[in-house]
Amino acid sequence: MKYGFFDDLSREYVIQQPDTPLPWINYLGSDNFFSLISNTCGGYCFYKDAKLLRMTRYRYNNVPYDTNGHYFYIKDRDTIWNPGWQPSKTPLDSYECRHGMGYSIFKSSKNQITANLLTFVPLKDSCEIQKITLTNDSEKERNISLFSYAEWCLWNADDDSRNFQRNLSTGEVEVKDSVLYHKTEYRERRNHYAFYGVNAPVNHFETSRDAFLGVYGSAEKPTAIIDGKLTDSIASGWYPIASHQINLCLKPGESKTFVFVLGYAENPEEEKWEAENIINKKPAETILKKYSSEASVDQAFSALKDYWTDLLSRFQVTTENEKVNRMVHIWNQYQCMVTFNMSRSASYYESGIGRGMGFRDSCQDLLGFVHLIPERARTRIIDIASTQFADGSAYHQYQPLTKKGNSDIGSGFNDDPLWLIAAVSAYIRETGDTSILKEPVPFDNEEETAVPLMEHLKRSFDFIVSHKGPHGLPLIGRADWNDCLNLNCYSRHPGESFQTFGPSEGPVAESVFIAGMFVKYGREYADLCHLVGNPAESEHAHKEVAKVYDSILQHGWDGKWFLRAYDANGEKVGSADCQEGKIFIEPQGFLPLSGVGIKEGLAEQALKSTEEWLDTQYGITILQPPYTHYHLNLGEISSYPPGYKENAGIFCHNNPWVSISEAVLGHGNRAFDVYRKICPAFLEDISEIHRTEPYVYSQMIAGKDAPRFGEAKNSWLTGTAAWTFVNVSQYILGIQPTLEGLCIDPCVPEDFGDFTVTRMYRGVCYHISVRNPHHVQRGISTLLVDGVAVQGNIIPFDSGKTDVYVEAAMG
Amino acid sequence: MKYGFFDDLSREYVIQQPDTPLPWINYLGSDNFFSLISNTCGGYCFYKDAKLLRMTRYRYNNVPYDTNGHYFYIKDRDTIWNPGWQPSKTPLDSYECRHGMGYSIFKSSKNQITANLLTFVPLKDSCEIQKITLTNDSEKERNISLFSYAEWCLWNADDDSRNFQRNLSTGEVEVKDSVLYHKTEYRERRNHYAFYGVNAPVNHFETSRDAFLGVYGSAEKPTAIIDGKLTDSIASGWYPIASHQINLCLKPGESKTFVFVLGYAENPEEEKWEAENIINKKPAETILKKYSSEASVDQAFSALKDYWTDLLSRFQVTTENEKVNRMVHIWNQYQCMVTFNMSRSASYYESGIGRGMGFRDSCQDLLGFVHLIPERARTRIIDIASTQFADGSAYHQYQPLTKKGNSDIGSGFNDDPLWLIAAVSAYIRETGDTSILKEPVPFDNEEETAVPLMEHLKRSFDFIVSHKGPHGLPLIGRADWNDCLNLNCYSRHPGESFQTFGPSEGPVAESVFIAGMFVKYGREYADLCHLVGNPAESEHAHKEVAKVYDSILQHGWDGKWFLRAYDANGEKVGSADCQEGKIFIEPQGFLPLSGVGIKEGLAEQALKSTEEWLDTQYGITILQPPYTHYHLNLGEISSYPPGYKENAGIFCHNNPWVSISEAVLGHGNRAFDVYRKICPAFLEDISEIHRTEPYVYSQMIAGKDAPRFGEAKNSWLTGTAAWTFVNVSQYILGIQPTLEGLCIDPCVPEDFGDFTVTRMYRGVCYHISVRNPHHVQRGISTLLVDGVAVQGNIIPFDSGKTDVYVEAAMG
Repeated sequence: MKYGFFDDLSREYVIQQPDTPLPWINYLGSDNFFSLISNTCGGYCFYKDAKLLRMTRYRYNNVPYDTNGHYFYIKDRDTIWNPGWQPSKTPLDSYECRHGMGYSIFKSSKNQITANLLTFVPLKDSCEIQKITLTNDSEKERNISLFSYAEWCLWNADDDSRNFQRNLSTGEVEVKDSVLYHKTEYRERRNHYAFYGVNAPVNHFETSRDAFLGVYGSAEKPTAIIDGKLTDSIASGWYPIASHQINLCLKPGESKTFVFVLGYAENPEEEKWEAENIINKKPAETILKKYSSEASVDQAFSALKDYWTDLLSRFQVTTENEKVNRMVHIWNQYQCMVTFNMSRSASYYESGIGRGMGFRDSCQDLLGFVHLIPERARTRIIDIASTQFADGSAYHQYQPLTKKGNSDIGSGFNDDPLWLIAAVSAYIRETGDTSILKEPVPFDNEEETAVPLMEHLKRSFDFIVSHKGPHGLPLIGRADWNDCLNLNCYSRHPGESFQTFGPSEGPVAESVFIAGMFVKYGREYADLCHLVGNPAESEHAHKEVAKVYDSILQHGWDGKWFLRAYDANGEKVGSADCQEGKIFIEPQGFLPLSGVGIKEGLAEQALKSTEEWLDTQYGITILQPPYTHYHLNLGEISSYPPGYKENAGIFCHNNPWVSISEAVLGHGNRAFDVYRKICPAFLEDISEIHRTEPYVYSQMIAGKDAPRFGEAKNSWLTGTAAWTFVNVSQYILGIQPTLEGLCIDPCVPEDFGDFTVTRMYRGVCYHISVRNPHHVQRGISTLLVDGVAVQGNIIPFDSGKTDVYVEAAMG
Repeated sequence: MKYGFFDDLSREYVIQQPDTPLPWINYLGSDNFFSLISNTCGGYCFYKDAKLLRMTRYRYNNVPYDTNGHYFYIKDRDTIWNPGWQPSKTPLDSYECRHGMGYSIFKSSKNQITANLLTFVPLKDSCEIQKITLTNDSEKERNISLFSYAEWCLWNADDDSRNFQRNLSTGEVEVKDSVLYHKTEYRERRNHYAFYGVNAPVNHFETSRDAFLGVYGSAEKPTAIIDGKLTDSIASGWYPIASHQINLCLKPGESKTFVFVLGYAENPEEEKWEAENIINKKPAETILKKYSSEASVDQAFSALKDYWTDLLSRFQVTTENEKVNRMVHIWNQYQCMVTFNMSRSASYYESGIGRGMGFRDSCQDLLGFVHLIPERARTRIIDIASTQFADGSAYHQYQPLTKKGNSDIGSGFNDDPLWLIAAVSAYIRETGDTSILKEPVPFDNEEETAVPLMEHLKRSFDFIVSHKGPHGLPLIGRADWNDCLNLNCYSRHPGESFQTFGPSEGPVAESVFIAGMFVKYGREYADLCHLVGNPAESEHAHKEVAKVYDSILQHGWDGKWFLRAYDANGEKVGSADCQEGKIFIEPQGFLPLSGVGIKEGLAEQALKSTEEWLDTQYGITILQPPYTHYHLNLGEISSYPPGYKENAGIFCHNNPWVSISEAVLGHGNRAFDVYRKICPAFLEDISEIHRTEPYVYSQMIAGKDAPRFGEAKNSWLTGTAAWTFVNVSQYILGIQPTLEGLCIDPCVPEDFGDFTVTRMYRGVCYHISVRNPHHVQRGISTLLVDGVAVQGNIIPFDSGKTDVYVEAAMG
């Protein structure tokens, strides 16, 4: 079942029915100010940090679903309705929600009144703009009232949800003209406040939730709206909100437009006040003035659209498959930008008050956005590397506001160091900017410890070399990529962290997956050493890689597939000898793409076993058979009910690894099949099963062992976005940035047809046309660059050009 | 405005209108299992620990207010209603909620169907019993359906509210016959599950919230109930709930009764399963069987009533003032028991996921319940003292489940040590049990460090002696009784704890309040030393007390009142010299009752100043004038808007100190006036202003500087309960337990009239009659004990008696 459609020309997903199976959301904002907004106008906004500077209050796991939000109510005689359907849920005569790039548009009508709501965060200002146009489509004059509504969060979203004995007494507001100011705690240690204004006089306002909703009232039927008149309340403690009332008369056919601005403002300490306990409103007024006219809003909206047009133009594709086109050109890249902004912090499944940025997560995310925003990727790399320890290990997470490592979780996730190499290597392949390697970067944010970034990579590399177990394979520590495979923890009691309880690290448990990473990123490290003129270190690195490679062959192969790990007792994990969890996806997916076992035929066999054991109609499960009991020696992985999450769910993140590996082996049909199965655009027709948004990837789809097989969860913030973009752009379409230049090496299904790609690369625009007259799965037979034939499939980079025309023929 | 009335005979408060200004709640449970229940059936239950073992899900700060709860729905053709009004809010033909001692009764009717719901937690079993009787009051046969509803919390209430990326995949249930089992995480590290059963066959059930409510549905109008048929869903992840459906036919005049039991069960590790992944249901079935008949439920309810009759009989009073009678005999003691059970952990303002038990809080609470449950008070003292450090300082909080000190907040609250002396002294005065002083008690829970409890008291005493500042007054540390007066912190940034940021302790800032405490509890310590035959230590203690006493006179008097403190710069806090915060209640309230300044006339003057500066019609504010700006050197106290909380709110906790001090000075009229102003029963008629329950104390009432003057907040869990009981029982009514025996020393208003008190004391029942023929405020002229005149006003304790008859005449 479908709930909408893709409007590719507008780069929008259009939802035509408000009661989607789950909230289908969008992200607004591209710099410091962000809003989450669902297809029913649910959501919240924050400045920089979803935990510490949350501006509006949202209720996770609420009933009704997905409340609250930034709502508009229209009162038309006795009918009260919302352009986004919720919260009144009054049936609408028409409804449409368009989620676009950094904006959402709602167009709804009821009884011949139409509301058209555009909402977006402008490129540089810290505010959400809501432009709403009301039109009288009837032939009579209509008198209606428009109400806005947002509930303020008392800034720290965590404290806001628990510390009532304090927080119910602290709320403070100010009102001036049409602007409602939220200034809780401004009188003490905060230098920031929030504001909500409109570019028109208001008839009334409300700042007390009780006055607005009624003491036992709900957002579905606010008492003050039923009464038709807000009471001009001034909140004192309890629950401050912001609601404007505008009464308006619309002649037949007439439209009126209002611009609401919900924003964040801060003042220098010495300019906090304009009078005794009266906040200095200048920064708010500046923004409000800037957006006081429709024209200025339209201009800002236009600038936002241009920004995205420019950004997405860096990788455009035209194939015969429109689903591939819309995902690659639009939604996959858009999701990569959202993971850049959010990491794993704030979604409809991530409450925004838990962890900050992940070391591993952010390094992987970078693989998906480095071609879009290389300058910001550079900054991100420095931020990440600054949380590394001098021994090469790293904080597993760090806080976006402070950029300091999170000592609650600490280090000990032994794949982390290698992801830094992956990120830097990707950055340099994309940009050619080797200067980053000389950038001084501290350890653990202690400035005086700064060394060139290259030295950080060496510490990363050396950490693995010096942390190997009895089989010569890397020690797993608290966990490798799979945070739930905890081989050193042995937790028996609820509440203990599966990752940090007990010894949590140890000298025996080894990861075959990290071994594969070491081969791949160890070689990339060697390439960088070579590039910067250190052949000795490069050779040393290759030697170390070779050792681990041998250890994999000797101890990491189970007969028909790669082992997953050895546990703290030296027992095999992910082996045919195991009763449950016989085969895991991670090594089968990652080792072939790392080049492990290809010449020995093991890669081919591992992928066959993957298809045989792990594949389903909705994607490849992470392991089989699921764990039916809790295994003390394996940890969190066995804590999930069979078929969910890391216990035999379809963990989308590593499906692209398998697809890439298939491509590396030249299996274009299979590579695409794996790509297609979890690709949201291909699942649009089964939204009643898949349930999450058909325009973005989810972290997980329930596996075949789960009662809800095929149902996705945790949409948006997943490494799936980045890895899928790597897969489809570099391996399926085969446009690979290398240290020397772009490499053209597609691996597609036989019936994929010809395609073109336009790609910005190091400031040069490549116009690539790939023909496949003989319907092969892989292999370039001729390559013309600006009409000149080139040997091999790498286009040597030439910075003197602005455009390069490439014609490639497969066969 | 009143929303109900006191039914003193039944010991119930009867609410006659469901939309009370705030949820008016009750606590069920007296041992390990507790429920909070509001007058609209909102609330939740937990086993032992509101954070770690929460059974059902409640939403704090939700709209509508006070949802969810343990609800019953009645579907009668197209009408759906609830006995407690919420969540459907269908207008009822009649409604009554009776909050009694550990139980609540709802009696409501709609369209000639009456529902009578009794809910309580039996004395020893870990379950909530809900007995519901439906009666057909019409003359037609009626076919109706009854639905239960509770939403499971996934045990850890903190994690449950934030960790969705995991928790939405873990929910698991089982269903057998009429019993719905919640077994999330039972398959891994938990050995406990929850169950919800009914003593009758069910027609249908629901365990998936989405199936019950509908995806965008609300508890107000559950889809499955509107459809009239639950769908027998088996939840898998997402949101597990429990709902039974019973269809029934009632003949005219017929009643049918059902017993629902919502319980907690645990199994030994080796008996977790009865078959492969099928939980061992024996412990649940045992409880369900026990309460399968109405008779057994009635018996358990009867036992609960007997328990409370016995408990409350330990202190009964009959005066001419029924408000005093009902508060002293019933509600004040009841609230003391609730603070014993809950400390400050779980109320409608305390979210149950924050702090555990307070060291200071629990010691003070004990003053209010030690006469009710002396054996449990003894255990509590040992628990508390076990968290003390060897240097006499103490963890400020500890966890109820583990009984370990909470290192997040640590120690440094320099009043804490003295509260331990207060608690032990009160215990011994009440019980005469000096054996507790020899009880071995560890420091910081390290068993090998155990020393006799008496040594802990010595360490407490010595800590103060060794932590004095430049004026010879005790150092304040992070804070004294007023957690918000932070003289060593200097926090400039949001998110920093006002109590633990910065140095947070220091060698200069001193507390006049702790000095007063030291005088009072130092002397009580000296008395205990004397009692156990250590006159040298006793004499030493008196000398140290005398030194501090002198320091108070020399440096603690401001001219018209006592100073509050010296800050870290040695500047005065709470002085006429200050621009704001000139006078504080704490020293004026506590120093006179400690005997400071009485003979010098300072106490009298301090209390006069208190009345002049701090008193209002709704109680005595904590300071005046309020702080209008944030003071870095004072901390959290100045972070509140003027008139709220510690910044010039009426902080109820220390109003009884003033009342006691007035009584100590013989001012019976004034002592009672102070008592009356914050006494909830006296505020019943102004519930629209006071807003919280008229049967229990609240932590705070907004002061005259606040926009909402007179409005209370944070009801139930406050030291006000204990201190008020001390005040009214020991100082106003004047029945004081001393080391030698009961002392009779009333201090009442001139028009108070005669009164009688029945009091259990060390196993003997005292029947005390006090006459006041001459309408004096204080002074006993004659005292007859069993008809024999006694010199002075102490009745020497005689353990040989079972009953003692006392006749006292004032005058």
